[in-house]
Amino acid sequence: MTSESNGLAELEGRIKKDIPLARHLGLSLASYDGACITLNAPLDGNSNHRDTAFAGSLDAVATLAGWSLMSLMLKELGVDGEVVIQNCTVSFVRPVTADFSARCWKPAAHAIADFAAMLLKRGRARMELEAIIGERLDPAVRFFGRYVAILKD
Amino acid sequence: MTSESNGLAELEGRIKKDIPLARHLGLSLASYDGACITLNAPLDGNSNHRDTAFAGSLDAVATLAGWSLMSLMLKELGVDGEVVIQNCTVSFVRPVTADFSARCWKPAAHAIADFAAMLLKRGRARMELEAIIGERLDPAVRFFGRYVAILKD
Repeated sequence: MTSESNGLAELEGRIKKDIPLARHLGLSLASYDGACITLNAPLDGNSNHRDTAFAGSLDAVATLAGWSLMSLMLKELGVDGEVVIQNCTVSFVRPVTADFSARCWKPAAHAIADFAAMLLKRGRARMELEAIIGERLDPAVRFFGRYVAILKD
Repeated sequence: MTSESNGLAELEGRIKKDIPLARHLGLSLASYDGACITLNAPLDGNSNHRDTAFAGSLDAVATLAGWSLMSLMLKELGVDGEVVIQNCTVSFVRPVTADFSARCWKPAAHAIADFAAMLLKRGRARMELEAIIGERLDPAVRFFGRYVAILKD
C-alpha cells in the first residue's frame, strides 16, 4: 500500500496540525503494511544532556505510534471515533544514540474482533498495544499503552 | 529559598540548553521548597486534537520533574553525578484542560539515606519517584518513574 492509499499521509498531516509538539518531534509516519506502523524521528532536536534521545521524546513518539495505529484500525473498521490514551508503561532499556523508529503492531485478529464488538455495543472499547524502538527482539525502548476508542455520535 | 539560592534557575537553564524539546514544552522550574519541586507548562503549544494536553507533553514534563528533583538531591548530597530514567508508568486519569503543573516529592528520609549509601558504595543507585499533575489527592495524571544516578569519575 502507498501512504496515500492507506491514509498515512492524511493522518500525519492531521497529527502535525492538531498537536504542536509533534511538529517539534520532527516525526514522520513512515510506513504501514496493514499489520505494523512505523514512525521515524531524528535524534537532532530530540537529544538530551548525554547526546542520546530524551526520554520524553521517546515516550511521545511511541505514544503517537499506538495512537496512529488505533486511528487506522478505526478507519478500517469503518467507524468514526476518537482515540485517547489511558495509561502506559515504558522501559528505557538502553540509550538511543541515532535517529530512531517506533513500531507498533496490531494485536491478534480475535482481539481486534472483541474490540470491534465492544465498540459497537458500548460505544467505547479499550485496546492494549505494544510499541518498540530499536530491534523487536532486542529493543532499546519498550512501550505498552492502553488506548480507549470512543465512537462519535 | 529563592530560585537562585537553591539552584533552580541554573538547572532550568541547563535543561533548556541540553534538551531542545524542553524549550518547546515551554516549561519553567517554578519552585522547590526542599521537599517538593513544581514545574509549570502552558496548555498552548502542548495541546492535542481535543484541545486538552497531549499525553506526550504530560509524560515529558513529569519525567523532567523527577529528573530535576534527582539532580537537586545529588547536589544536596554534595556529589557530582548523572541522572537517567530507567522506566516509568503513567496513568492519564482525566483530561488536562488548562495550563498545568507537575509536582514531584522527595521520598522519606530513610530512603534517601539508603540511596546515598548505595551511591557512594557502588557508584550508582536507583530511586523511585512519584510525580502528579493536578491535585495530589485527586490527580489528573499519576507518574511513577525509576531513576538511576551514576557518580562521575
